Amino acid sequence: VARYRTDVFRVAMSGPGDVSAVLDLCRSGALDPAHIVAVFGKTEGNGGVNDFTREYSCSALATALAPLLATSSAAVEQRIAMVMSGGTEGILTPHATIFARVPETEDMAGRSDGRLAIGIASTRIFEPWEIGRGAQIEQTAHAVRAAMREGGILRTEDVHWVQIKCPLLTAGRVRVARLAGHDVCTESAYKSMGYSRGASALGVAVALGEIESEIAEEAVLADWSLASGVASSSAGIELLHSVIVVLGNSEEVAGNYKIGHDVMRDAIDARAVLAAFRDAGLGSDANPLDFDPGQIVNVLAKADPSPDGLVRGYRHTMLDDTDISATRHVRAAVGGIVAGLAGCPAIFVSGGAEHQGPPGGGPVAVIARVI
Amino acid sequence: VARYRTDVFRVAMSGPGDVSAVLDLCRSGALDPAHIVAVFGKTEGNGGVNDFTREYSCSALATALAPLLATSSAAVEQRIAMVMSGGTEGILTPHATIFARVPETEDMAGRSDGRLAIGIASTRIFEPWEIGRGAQIEQTAHAVRAAMREGGILRTEDVHWVQIKCPLLTAGRVRVARLAGHDVCTESAYKSMGYSRGASALGVAVALGEIESEIAEEAVLADWSLASGVASSSAGIELLHSVIVVLGNSEEVAGNYKIGHDVMRDAIDARAVLAAFRDAGLGSDANPLDFDPGQIVNVLAKADPSPDGLVRGYRHTMLDDTDISATRHVRAAVGGIVAGLAGCPAIFVSGGAEHQGPPGGGPVAVIARVI
Amino acid sequence: VARYRTDVFRVAMSGPGDVSAVLDLCRSGALDPAHIVAVFGKTEGNGGVNDFTREYSCSALATALAPLLATSSAAVEQRIAMVMSGGTEGILTPHATIFARVPETEDMAGRSDGRLAIGIASTRIFEPWEIGRGAQIEQTAHAVRAAMREGGILRTEDVHWVQIKCPLLTAGRVRVARLAGHDVCTESAYKSMGYSRGASALGVAVALGEIESEIAEEAVLADWSLASGVASSSAGIELLHSVIVVLGNSEEVAGNYKIGHDVMRDAIDARAVLAAFRDAGLGSDANPLDFDPGQIVNVLAKADPSPDGLVRGYRHTMLDDTDISATRHVRAAVGGIVAGLAGCPAIFVSGGAEHQGPPGGGPVAVIARVI
Amino acid sequence: VARYRTDVFRVAMSGPGDVSAVLDLCRSGALDPAHIVAVFGKTEGNGGVNDFTREYSCSALATALAPLLATSSAAVEQRIAMVMSGGTEGILTPHATIFARVPETEDMAGRSDGRLAIGIASTRIFEPWEIGRGAQIEQTAHAVRAAMREGGILRTEDVHWVQIKCPLLTAGRVRVARLAGHDVCTESAYKSMGYSRGASALGVAVALGEIESEIAEEAVLADWSLASGVASSSAGIELLHSVIVVLGNSEEVAGNYKIGHDVMRDAIDARAVLAAFRDAGLGSDANPLDFDPGQIVNVLAKADPSPDGLVRGYRHTMLDDTDISATRHVRAAVGGIVAGLAGCPAIFVSGGAEHQGPPGGGPVAVIARVI
Repeated sequence: VARYRTDVFRVAMSGPGDVSAVLDLCRSGALDPAHIVAVFGKTEGNGGVNDFTREYSCSALATALAPLLATSSAAVEQRIAMVMSGGTEGILTPHATIFARVPETEDMAGRSDGRLAIGIASTRIFEPWEIGRGAQIEQTAHAVRAAMREGGILRTEDVHWVQIKCPLLTAGRVRVARLAGHDVCTESAYKSMGYSRGASALGVAVALGEIESEIAEEAVLADWSLASGVASSSAGIELLHSVIVVLGNSEEVAGNYKIGHDVMRDAIDARAVLAAFRDAGLGSDANPLDFDPGQIVNVLAKADPSPDGLVRGYRHTMLDDTDISATRHVRAAVGGIVAGLAGCPAIFVSGGAEHQGPPGGGPVAVIARVI
Repeated sequence: VARYRTDVFRVAMSGPGDVSAVLDLCRSGALDPAHIVAVFGKTEGNGGVNDFTREYSCSALATALAPLLATSSAAVEQRIAMVMSGGTEGILTPHATIFARVPETEDMAGRSDGRLAIGIASTRIFEPWEIGRGAQIEQTAHAVRAAMREGGILRTEDVHWVQIKCPLLTAGRVRVARLAGHDVCTESAYKSMGYSRGASALGVAVALGEIESEIAEEAVLADWSLASGVASSSAGIELLHSVIVVLGNSEEVAGNYKIGHDVMRDAIDARAVLAAFRDAGLGSDANPLDFDPGQIVNVLAKADPSPDGLVRGYRHTMLDDTDISATRHVRAAVGGIVAGLAGCPAIFVSGGAEHQGPPGGGPVAVIARVI
Repeated sequence: VARYRTDVFRVAMSGPGDVSAVLDLCRSGALDPAHIVAVFGKTEGNGGVNDFTREYSCSALATALAPLLATSSAAVEQRIAMVMSGGTEGILTPHATIFARVPETEDMAGRSDGRLAIGIASTRIFEPWEIGRGAQIEQTAHAVRAAMREGGILRTEDVHWVQIKCPLLTAGRVRVARLAGHDVCTESAYKSMGYSRGASALGVAVALGEIESEIAEEAVLADWSLASGVASSSAGIELLHSVIVVLGNSEEVAGNYKIGHDVMRDAIDARAVLAAFRDAGLGSDANPLDFDPGQIVNVLAKADPSPDGLVRGYRHTMLDDTDISATRHVRAAVGGIVAGLAGCPAIFVSGGAEHQGPPGGGPVAVIARVI
Repeated sequence: VARYRTDVFRVAMSGPGDVSAVLDLCRSGALDPAHIVAVFGKTEGNGGVNDFTREYSCSALATALAPLLATSSAAVEQRIAMVMSGGTEGILTPHATIFARVPETEDMAGRSDGRLAIGIASTRIFEPWEIGRGAQIEQTAHAVRAAMREGGILRTEDVHWVQIKCPLLTAGRVRVARLAGHDVCTESAYKSMGYSRGASALGVAVALGEIESEIAEEAVLADWSLASGVASSSAGIELLHSVIVVLGNSEEVAGNYKIGHDVMRDAIDARAVLAAFRDAGLGSDANPLDFDPGQIVNVLAKADPSPDGLVRGYRHTMLDDTDISATRHVRAAVGGIVAGLAGCPAIFVSGGAEHQGPPGGGPVAVIARVI
């Protein structure tokens, strides 16, 4: 029999504090709250430093689920990997994707042909001076491998998305480092987010063999030739360790979903999006658009304003806009192309893509319903 | 022999005051400034009320061309139809498209199989109380037909894009109306832009037979079932009449370009974009993406945040965002999908789509190089 | 003996979900949570339609106080009048002001020389078609008088600030009105906020005798000569009735605080701010700036971008800015002038000032510590 | 007789391209265009990287004045020191201040009691590797002294404002430096603006003896204890050298104006603004607000979001706002306090205050009409 069955639910949110759709799923019996292992949410904040919709959504969800799980809301936030990505620019719609693992039951078939599997692991707590450096790369790599085992994902080539929540530096943590006689990668909280995301992504690349040689820690935010094609990391002030969610396909897992991916070379790489669809079994080689949009459960994509200021040789103005942050611009644009091809605006496009795909591009994965 | 040959040049702009690429074309002999009939520009402002990049670009271009045409810069702005659309959100790139008509010469072949033609006409000056009402619809319809004749576009079905610059109401013009004993469609300058754009678009629909019955003037900004599938209008404070630029194909015109179009049903209607490509001779029925991106000279598209707050049934947040105007959001998203399919970010996506395609959607046209 | 003693606490917030300072006050014994009657908060959102920091702050505060009051968080939101105003533009700092009424005890002196008093009342639920109309004006006036009585404020001239939370129209409520055969003041949710705020302010003006003749309901958002010099109203989607908080001075109330006010004629009316300080006993006629900034507990002010586009005859650009909403601009500016004079950035400046002071201006009140 | 008479005109602008008020002054005879030496403008852009209103205003003004001065517009930009500061946030109004020097004539009195004088000088062109370093500090100091002499300002204590336009680094200039075997202060164009502004301000401090010891070039953007109390610098891409405008009082100069200044300790330092008024002869010691607002020709002020995130110990949110740049926030706030005290919103508040007053504060000067 299969180890477990993966269920995925995509639900709309009428605001960052709206948990009614999740509660409805639980009440209806479609979803047992005890089976929830992860939630990926897109919330309608600005996705920047002062985006409080992420913590508000986490808090609302934990508070709502706590009585159902007979525990505290703090315990819920520990138990379920909640990844809230702020920013629904353009046509993107606020929504949440709930991943549940249903334990094996008699009606589950034996080995599948490879179905969506999800594995979760955590690193140890990082010292402030480890952020953005070799230790973070190394520990992340260990945790990615642990998450694969935890989820029953057997081969590195079966991994199609690795979502990471990683810590950042604050003024307080910088002081702690100094008192302990250590220097830090940067004293800026904002910049430390980039270092932490970048080191996390490199950890994924190491774990999956995407980079063969050893990585010098000077490469973080410096050698852009090093990147993972499946990593998606975001830094958050609320944790001191990293949480890793690996999505892949596994013959030991049941369910009605498959995942595939590709890497967008730049922000308008429609062909990569279609290749990801194809990789998940959608479309045909002759006509990549020949599929039923209803089969797509969600598309996960990273968006990045190319740092050289160009898209296919043409100047973009995202990095010079003092009114709208570049991340908001590029999420809107990548959201447009992905939603256009997927035929649905409820997709998970997030920013901050250091070492996640090439500069200006990023990984894209699709979770498809098998029919 | 052909009436004329249409040449189209798309050039990059390093800023709203940058006219160097146009001057280079003139200096190199590729473009005779005397042949320029229209310029469509995307400038990197916010596309809103306080976007001064449009007038700055017009002013810089007129000042630069004046000595070449041995006239004043004011006369250049009269002679050449300059349409500057502000807003290069997301991956859109600031650029200008120059349309030139080269007079018939001996080496031109006779009747073509239908090549890009361009016709220009103006309405009379509108009284303030005519803006947004029947008179504007009617006069615009007359001018569209005049522009077709002027450009040698023979049939309404050969028209694929009608770009209109139309006037708006100011506090002063409202006072003039009142002194003359007339009321106006609205006293708000901002709202009058929508009325003027809407009435202009309905004028196009009447001229081209897209609407069969007579239009009651109460329909402007009210009956959204009435729309043109090829109109693109923008209101400007600098003129009291409307300027109409009709783009179509004509057997009486030579050149290396063709134009095709379709209507996006909503902001993520990738299939309509591909249908427009197909209409211009790009791609194949089997695989709509099977074409050389280098063949695309430009894509012209209107973007509109759907007024019901939904895209394919999913909530969008564009109309509720107090930080970024809905027009900027939707231009970024539509720019993403169009650029993704066209393989190039130098495309002309503009906002303000009242009665231009269905609510939330809009016309899309592509100018393709014939090979 | 006095009816009660009013205590006021101003506490910093490190984010919209930060309730630690309020809990510290409770834990230390300085504040009995059972005595809290109202909280005025400035939260760091955009103060616009998509500002979720207000509801997040309310929710966090109610959740934190619930166990201390041995009730549910919903009951806390019913019991305590929470007014969260979004937007800490410029130098404004996120903070909360907690108003507590301590019951009479033996050590309280008899009649005071007039100390800060606070009274609270609610209107009945409004039908959708009553919003922005005569019924809302009338019911608000009744509730203002009731709140005065409830708080022991004896004379209308002793009232210095009336804070109102009022309902707005939603698409659903508009439908309800139509089914009942009624029309509504506007079908736009956004516009209904202005109508509701305006009618509420006019209700205050009626209750306090600021307007002598009867108000025709057509005057709402039309006759700007009608205004209250002490009203401050904000519309919220979460309630169907209005909550009124009246602040004034009363000889029947004890405590260490007094309140005074004046009306800013425009957004840079420094003299009105100083007059309000003077009205609360700060400064001297000879030198209005001659006071100890530590005496100021808080300044409450309304900010309004003057609708004629002028400040003292000079053009302002707030209403034409497509990048930053006019409300954010003007809060930053009024915050600057008030904080400069008060010597402290923790002040309560809010927007949306229909019929609250003259167009472009607004009421300003100061709560001062008596020494 | 006096060396010259200084005339100052403050004129409104209806948009960044509006030069009508300047032309009216010339046409009326009140201003001889040949006497114009400097123009300080506030334009209604965002004051950031993509603010094109500054170059548009310069270009419009130069084009308009060229025929009156019988020269080219390029020559006008060389001849007149044009300082355009973008950003009219809050109640600030777009306007220009024109400084003219009228040559000595018989009706001019002899030595004055010290009237507004203006001196202008330029540095040599800076090599890319000199930007933000010792050479820039040194050369700026030389030029400040030269400008004092040029304008007849005799003593350093008579200098009340030094406006500097300085160059920045671009990718191209960084390449030039590298080819020549030099490193640069930063490779980021944006950051080089801060370095250049900071080194310029330190040059002013050296010239005026505000800093006694020698400045190590490592102090630029590092040792914030070093600052000038009268410097105001802005970096522009259009020049390779620096232009210095010194404003002070001189007994050798005639006219109806005086200038005074003070230093704001933080963004709400109303007392410093009043001290500057007092320094220019406005108000009295007893009541600093006792003056006629009509006497104020303009107030010049620098605004800075305090880098430690605090204003008088209270947290501000300007540096964490992903929607509005900190510079826009603080200009609105400082504009509010200054306009409130001056009684007029047509004031020159600009951002970017490295080494110009203390962190979070900045110099403030007032030009007053003598009566």
